[in-house]
Amino acid sequence: MSDSSKYERRGVSATKSEVHAAIQGLDQGLYPKAFCKILPDFAAGDPAYCNLMHADTAGTKPSLAYLYWKETGDLSVWEGIAQDALVMNLDDMACVGCIDENVLSTTIGRNKNLISGEVISALIKASSSFIEKMASYGIQIHPAGGETADVGDIVRTIDVGYTAFGRLRRDELLVNDIQPGDVIVGFASYGQATYENSYNGGMGSNGLTSARHDVFDHGYAAKYPESFDPSLPDDVVYVGGKKLTDTIDIAGEAIPVGKLVLSPTRTYQATVPKVAASYARYDSLYRWRTNQGDQIC
Amino acid sequence: MSDSSKYERRGVSATKSEVHAAIQGLDQGLYPKAFCKILPDFAAGDPAYCNLMHADTAGTKPSLAYLYWKETGDLSVWEGIAQDALVMNLDDMACVGCIDENVLSTTIGRNKNLISGEVISALIKASSSFIEKMASYGIQIHPAGGETADVGDIVRTIDVGYTAFGRLRRDELLVNDIQPGDVIVGFASYGQATYENSYNGGMGSNGLTSARHDVFDHGYAAKYPESFDPSLPDDVVYVGGKKLTDTIDIAGEAIPVGKLVLSPTRTYQATVPKVAASYARYDSLYRWRTNQGDQIC
Repeated sequence: MSDSSKYERRGVSATKSEVHAAIQGLDQGLYPKAFCKILPDFAAGDPAYCNLMHADTAGTKPSLAYLYWKETGDLSVWEGIAQDALVMNLDDMACVGCIDENVLSTTIGRNKNLISGEVISALIKASSSFIEKMASYGIQIHPAGGETADVGDIVRTIDVGYTAFGRLRRDELLVNDIQPGDVIVGFASYGQATYENSYNGGMGSNGLTSARHDVFDHGYAAKYPESFDPSLPDDVVYVGGKKLTDTIDIAGEAIPVGKLVLSPTRTYQATVPKVAASYARYDSLYRWRTNQGDQIC
Repeated sequence: MSDSSKYERRGVSATKSEVHAAIQGLDQGLYPKAFCKILPDFAAGDPAYCNLMHADTAGTKPSLAYLYWKETGDLSVWEGIAQDALVMNLDDMACVGCIDENVLSTTIGRNKNLISGEVISALIKASSSFIEKMASYGIQIHPAGGETADVGDIVRTIDVGYTAFGRLRRDELLVNDIQPGDVIVGFASYGQATYENSYNGGMGSNGLTSARHDVFDHGYAAKYPESFDPSLPDDVVYVGGKKLTDTIDIAGEAIPVGKLVLSPTRTYQATVPKVAASYARYDSLYRWRTNQGDQIC
């Protein structure tokens, strides 16, 4: 079974072809090549500025946090979910240079019979802590409140999403202009960044439907049927061999596999401005040398 | 069984006490008595202006649209769901006077095995149509795109939400200042407004968990187990006697009960500015007369 067909059988489209078909013909914003849709400055009507609004969720990662919380009673895994949902927005916005003074609103849908008020409290407190931590790096995020809906007829466990609004000068935008010869610079998502309290497994929030089912033991299927779609074929549900509390030794520390996969998505908000500044210098140099018929290897 | 305990047994908190406890101590914005949280103008930094951001979803109404669509093949019920999710935001924002030039972003989570691409297309097209219709009444809404996630491990059928951002002058805000002797003016939610294409049953989007289960026939429980939380006690699941396609005669027209309950939430965006203007005149008159020792009965 190919990885893509396994993904499809788990009810996830890697290509999002149906969604792309559905939005075909819609306005693509001021800069169709930009990573996010860029709007005119509807908020304040200044032609030198633009707006963007970005929505994302923690995907199916909350289902894994639910499993870990139920097995261990450890509420701290929900703190990571709050960061996941926040960073899934903030880092996409950073890709177009929109980093500071963003306003964020949350939408949480929960099954009240399974998700207690202390989980909601943990999520909200963790958001506040993350926002304070970012402020200490000079990045201001403004929480606008949000909606917490009791919708057990729609949501099996809990869905955690954020939507962000940003306004910035158009001449500060980073718009994709990828050329032959450009290089890709990768940043580590694993390890421990200066602002992190513990080792980060590095998985982020994308691909968690595969990660959860490929890593963890089939015994969880019978114990927690509320943690996955019951219409999935049994041979793609929790087909790995790991228990959540099995440990892996990393630099002398025994870390539970559940926590490694649940490690919160790392933000590059503090890094991107520095990279962008270097790129701007490199880009000027490159273009100057190209104009001279010279080359940078 | 009291209505409130039935609501609790269906996994819905009418008082939202747990949510209120979770957000206790958080900043309440510039005007704690306002219907929405009002923020300083983070977007443009003008002390004469303010920002607000508002999130809401169509709640459990999409579960009923799913039933109706599966039973009849009628895609048009999804158009109403798009309007529900939009209006649940726009009308709350209208309550503080924030009506024009709002920017909206959508978050859709679907079970891809059950909800086809044509449903996503119907939702997106209906949003565009509603926005065009509001523009014809002089109300500009700006769609910012959004997220459609395939999350069958989290969402049973489909969850449809919007988040709105608005910026307005602080002196244009409507802030609650309810006084003894104030009157409540009600507007009809049923009937057919000038901008509506058909009769509206008037139920809106609140209370749909009760409405769905109290109105419709128990046979739907076995046929569509994906349309409700399987942990609910059987005696609160679809306990009404109606089939979706049973009809009720209204002014000589036989309307299916499913469509009556699914009628889209009516917006009062075009009405509120007129009411607010009348109120301002009434309020001046009232205060003047009160100052004179007179009375308005």
